[in-house]
Amino acid sequence: MTAAGRFPVMEIFGPTVQGEGMVIGRKTMFVRTAGCDYACSWCDSAFTWDGTGKRDIRMLTAAEIVSELFRLGGESFSHVTLSGGNPALLARLDELIALLHDRGIEVALETQGSLWRDWFLAIDDLTLSPKPPSSGMNADWAVLDQLVAKLTELNRNYSLKVVVFDETDLAYAGEVHRRYPHASLYLQSGNDDLAERDPAVLLNRLLRRYEWLVQRVMDSTSLKSVRVLPQLHAWLWGNKRGV
Amino acid sequence: MTAAGRFPVMEIFGPTVQGEGMVIGRKTMFVRTAGCDYACSWCDSAFTWDGTGKRDIRMLTAAEIVSELFRLGGESFSHVTLSGGNPALLARLDELIALLHDRGIEVALETQGSLWRDWFLAIDDLTLSPKPPSSGMNADWAVLDQLVAKLTELNRNYSLKVVVFDETDLAYAGEVHRRYPHASLYLQSGNDDLAERDPAVLLNRLLRRYEWLVQRVMDSTSLKSVRVLPQLHAWLWGNKRGV
Repeated sequence: MTAAGRFPVMEIFGPTVQGEGMVIGRKTMFVRTAGCDYACSWCDSAFTWDGTGKRDIRMLTAAEIVSELFRLGGESFSHVTLSGGNPALLARLDELIALLHDRGIEVALETQGSLWRDWFLAIDDLTLSPKPPSSGMNADWAVLDQLVAKLTELNRNYSLKVVVFDETDLAYAGEVHRRYPHASLYLQSGNDDLAERDPAVLLNRLLRRYEWLVQRVMDSTSLKSVRVLPQLHAWLWGNKRGV
Repeated sequence: MTAAGRFPVMEIFGPTVQGEGMVIGRKTMFVRTAGCDYACSWCDSAFTWDGTGKRDIRMLTAAEIVSELFRLGGESFSHVTLSGGNPALLARLDELIALLHDRGIEVALETQGSLWRDWFLAIDDLTLSPKPPSSGMNADWAVLDQLVAKLTELNRNYSLKVVVFDETDLAYAGEVHRRYPHASLYLQSGNDDLAERDPAVLLNRLLRRYEWLVQRVMDSTSLKSVRVLPQLHAWLWGNKRGV
């Protein structure tokens, strides 16, 4: 096996609930890949790209990843979520997806939509999450246009997810909604306190953030066909990793 | 207009978030009809059938309901949820659904699945929620079999939702999953304290109930392709009505 068949894996965990987005609540395993082409100011998985998690990165083959998933999850799961970092950086993740499909496992992907991979077409639940202004990133509309057009044309099961921290982000979400009116759009209230260690204190804060976003969306005449969701895992377990 | 063209309406409210089930988070208006063929021990809308809300029932035509929806929601919504009670008791709700579709509004239905109506086929997001043992009800499997078969055959967008309070309910959910392995299944942690008036106290309790259900489902090898969700509206607003 050459290095080309190995993937930088940051963590593998589960089964747990998917806490956000289009498959919220789904019993799933997570495979978190290392590396990202972005560096969002509020990233809740910055250890995947800022160097702090470097020592945890393992170079695994698709077969090794599958074997670890089954060692952890046994016969209790039927769904795996690929998250990052940005898993789309990895050219050959189709190898992993094929092995999982062979075992009857569905596969979800979370990616910002900054680049296209043909293996997106094999994904069962695809979330594109263009980053709003508060992230400090500049999403490339032209690339996102192409991705959305391709996924729509090929009738794939995908959605857009925008994390919202403030009014500027909310205006950005409105722009996404206007630009892709037929795409499922999920708005997610952001976690602005990644350092808080007391889950009860964090919960109170997150609840208020979510309620604010709900209220703003309810009052809006432009944000109509949208879903507004929190991050259930943060409500349950705070800022803890690997749950 | 004869009495046949009027519907017993308990409340109309929104826009708000759908707090549970297959369209969780969706911005929606609610139309709650009065009357139910069940009397679940823990029903969170018992006022629709136990007599306590009798004075609030209004007999409205479909056009009057639509006009009230637009008076409340203006141009800010594109989705209406029909809930109860059991809206399936009403033979001619297709009149309301057609008027809403004419305005470009999608329509969701929440019903226990105790009886079939041809207008189910016009529903965009259909939730069947057979009641577990803790409700005190006995769901009729034969009827549910027919409903699921028909909705599947006609390729409708529907899901099953089971509220879970205890281990017996969990076993019942497992039975539902085995019986309808290809149906989307949502498990929802029950609210066992409908009298609590302090949202903060209730929230703590609901969180623990949800975490218990998550844990039990994660440990299960039979409950695989499921979603586990709370009731977001109860987390946000407690036992308050009309939100």
